[in-house]
Amino acid sequence: MNRQILLNEKEIPKQWYNIQADMPNPVPPPLNPGTGKPITPDMLEAIFPMNIIEQEVSTERWITIPDAVLEKYLIWRPTPLYRASFLEKFLGTPAHIYFKNEGVSPPGSHKPNTAIAQAYFNKVFGVKRLATETGAGQWGSALAFACNQFGLECKVYMVRISYNQKPYRRTLMETWGAKCVPSPSPDTNAGRKFYEQNKEHFGSLGIAISEAVEDGATSKDSKYSIGSVANHVLLHQTILGLEAHKQLAMIGEYPDIVIGCAGGGSNFSGLALPFVRDKIHGKTLQVIACEPASCPTMTKGPYVYDFGDTAETTPLFAMHSLGHNFIPAPIHAGGLRYHGMAPIVSRLLMDNLIEARAYGQLETFAAGVIFARTEGFIPAPETNHAIACVIEEAKKAKEEGKEKVILMNWSGHGIIDLAAYDAYLSGKLEDSVLSDDEIQKSLKALEKYPKP
Amino acid sequence: MNRQILLNEKEIPKQWYNIQADMPNPVPPPLNPGTGKPITPDMLEAIFPMNIIEQEVSTERWITIPDAVLEKYLIWRPTPLYRASFLEKFLGTPAHIYFKNEGVSPPGSHKPNTAIAQAYFNKVFGVKRLATETGAGQWGSALAFACNQFGLECKVYMVRISYNQKPYRRTLMETWGAKCVPSPSPDTNAGRKFYEQNKEHFGSLGIAISEAVEDGATSKDSKYSIGSVANHVLLHQTILGLEAHKQLAMIGEYPDIVIGCAGGGSNFSGLALPFVRDKIHGKTLQVIACEPASCPTMTKGPYVYDFGDTAETTPLFAMHSLGHNFIPAPIHAGGLRYHGMAPIVSRLLMDNLIEARAYGQLETFAAGVIFARTEGFIPAPETNHAIACVIEEAKKAKEEGKEKVILMNWSGHGIIDLAAYDAYLSGKLEDSVLSDDEIQKSLKALEKYPKP
Repeated sequence: MNRQILLNEKEIPKQWYNIQADMPNPVPPPLNPGTGKPITPDMLEAIFPMNIIEQEVSTERWITIPDAVLEKYLIWRPTPLYRASFLEKFLGTPAHIYFKNEGVSPPGSHKPNTAIAQAYFNKVFGVKRLATETGAGQWGSALAFACNQFGLECKVYMVRISYNQKPYRRTLMETWGAKCVPSPSPDTNAGRKFYEQNKEHFGSLGIAISEAVEDGATSKDSKYSIGSVANHVLLHQTILGLEAHKQLAMIGEYPDIVIGCAGGGSNFSGLALPFVRDKIHGKTLQVIACEPASCPTMTKGPYVYDFGDTAETTPLFAMHSLGHNFIPAPIHAGGLRYHGMAPIVSRLLMDNLIEARAYGQLETFAAGVIFARTEGFIPAPETNHAIACVIEEAKKAKEEGKEKVILMNWSGHGIIDLAAYDAYLSGKLEDSVLSDDEIQKSLKALEKYPKP
Repeated sequence: MNRQILLNEKEIPKQWYNIQADMPNPVPPPLNPGTGKPITPDMLEAIFPMNIIEQEVSTERWITIPDAVLEKYLIWRPTPLYRASFLEKFLGTPAHIYFKNEGVSPPGSHKPNTAIAQAYFNKVFGVKRLATETGAGQWGSALAFACNQFGLECKVYMVRISYNQKPYRRTLMETWGAKCVPSPSPDTNAGRKFYEQNKEHFGSLGIAISEAVEDGATSKDSKYSIGSVANHVLLHQTILGLEAHKQLAMIGEYPDIVIGCAGGGSNFSGLALPFVRDKIHGKTLQVIACEPASCPTMTKGPYVYDFGDTAETTPLFAMHSLGHNFIPAPIHAGGLRYHGMAPIVSRLLMDNLIEARAYGQLETFAAGVIFARTEGFIPAPETNHAIACVIEEAKKAKEEGKEKVILMNWSGHGIIDLAAYDAYLSGKLEDSVLSDDEIQKSLKALEKYPKP
């Protein structure tokens, strides 16, 4: 039995996979909230360079990865695929469990797969500086790393409560030369009004997005960069799923079940989309997106047109959503606290090509500790949602006596999230369950907009 | 050009290399401080199992790695060897720079190479529980991980000032199921007398060692485990140098210069010893151990017989030392703050088979930031000492116009040490230089003991 399935650097995929070429139903176009009409690509030009906008709307199946991007991917890619033999043994399951270790990147997660690509495309477009927002800091640190690699300036608006609570993430960004400020900040119109009311305002991802978009759209030689949800982000992430596809083929395996956690949808899609392609073409397999019970976008949110941000500055996207005013409970899986879901993932869910499950916080940390105590590596709190599902499926395989092949995206390590493990181990963590009433209340604001 | 040189799991070395078989002058025996006579192996039996004591004194050249240890090594080994092409380009050097990435292990450093081996040998000897000390926490977390893998209990005495300042390391140990207490603790005779004087006593590595040795020697079914300095620890670490040796051979390279940082000497030896063997047999190469200017054990400490701990509970070892009462300045490279040096490393230095250099804290962090901003990965503060030397040698190669091959041990990542980077980036770090007077004063206590 192989424990590690490695690709050498020559075997790295040379193209990203664009599922928009294969979807049975296309993603509905984003709408202008004022007119209710589809926006045109040029309306995105203020915030994204045209080469990225082209990827956003492309229906080409394969998009070539530029050599300069591949060169940077080799800093940490191809990533290892591991057979989780110690976890299997612990569970006594006949299932073969594989995990794709995206935690080996310098920032510790899958995020740089798109950060490197976005920094490159902006660079060749003549952009000198990128602005973005970050919640817990995973995305901000990935973009800081990528901008540093391509010699771009980088400014990160970090939700103030995280900025204060997670100084390590800020230092990580600064070590890579980025500027990180707490949001709301006095540096933008969007931030200033909150900042002037209260200089210690905790902030929210919604406000931080508004600040970063304004900065990217209005500052000299600058653009905005986004870490999940958008089609081009999901496209770039497919590098990891294409690698895993190749790695499993090398040992003659194919997954019965593909599992990833989902916040905005990018790490899940990165692993899943190349396998969803097979499913569209007739393969039988399950593809499961795992979300927090406290932010059950796919399992409880309807498929609607909604804003990407709280401040209503973005177009309307066709997606599963809990409403853009919904503020999820402060769970430790900060990367999964998003009111919406990537339009591509949402459409695939509507078409039953994928399924969704929700897990409570305590259950996910219990799963993470089992993983750490069998496979050794400490998973990110987000990743623990995928692990909870893997354990559930591996137990089911045991009951059924089936030798199922389960593939999971191990989206990142939890080394900077150890405070969350401390809270769990000392019994201070709680589950937070969302009532249907709360969801209905939050969705009210969407009634006036078109339905997809 | 290859950026990554990978071994597949079948290519992992199956034996450790024991340099005691090849040293031109053997390591002088440890002495009983009371009698001045060599201690016999059985005098170590209270704290170590006999299978480990046999390795400590063995002169067999190759020692077989048990299958059960190899199985656990595959959790993260073989580790990648990287060509630091981005660093080379930044420096404009003709040198080929390679770094062995030991930061990919679950605890993030080279330490589990010996922790896994020690946990295994204790387990098969019937030991149920290991006690150890830890300063900054790298070693404690590695042993916690290893004990968890073999189902042993683990108790770590962590220097209280670090216990308070570095809660992430403690949580890491607890996530792997270990018990970690601040030292001095009320749990041992050695700790109790300090603890009862002052319940918030900052502690020191010396006191923590005394607590762990007492616990290991006196508790039921327990032994003591050590993370560096000892011959068997260096032996286990050679797995990494043997891998690197093989990896370079795969691409037809051989190092002109081998570089590692050195505190107790284990990560340096792990990389260097298989190459020192070649040097003993006639190869021409430089082997450089890098230490902090504030704890210049090899560059300023004489070769003497000294205690391994502050409390004078260990035998006397023949080593370079600044005196066992010496308390190094509180630099962030906690793993290099040790008054002595491994007896094997010390003897090799006396025989001019290796050389030593000292670097100031600011210089090492400047080097670490250059590394992070070229190669992406954030190095541990300890590792930054090796990087400072690599940069120095790469610049020299540029001046000389020589295509030298430089091999470095990248002993661990700095993700849990980001507070140190923050201090550096915000201008709060200082160099501390040690005066010769201070060293002479500290060495006074050794005058009454034999000379090696």
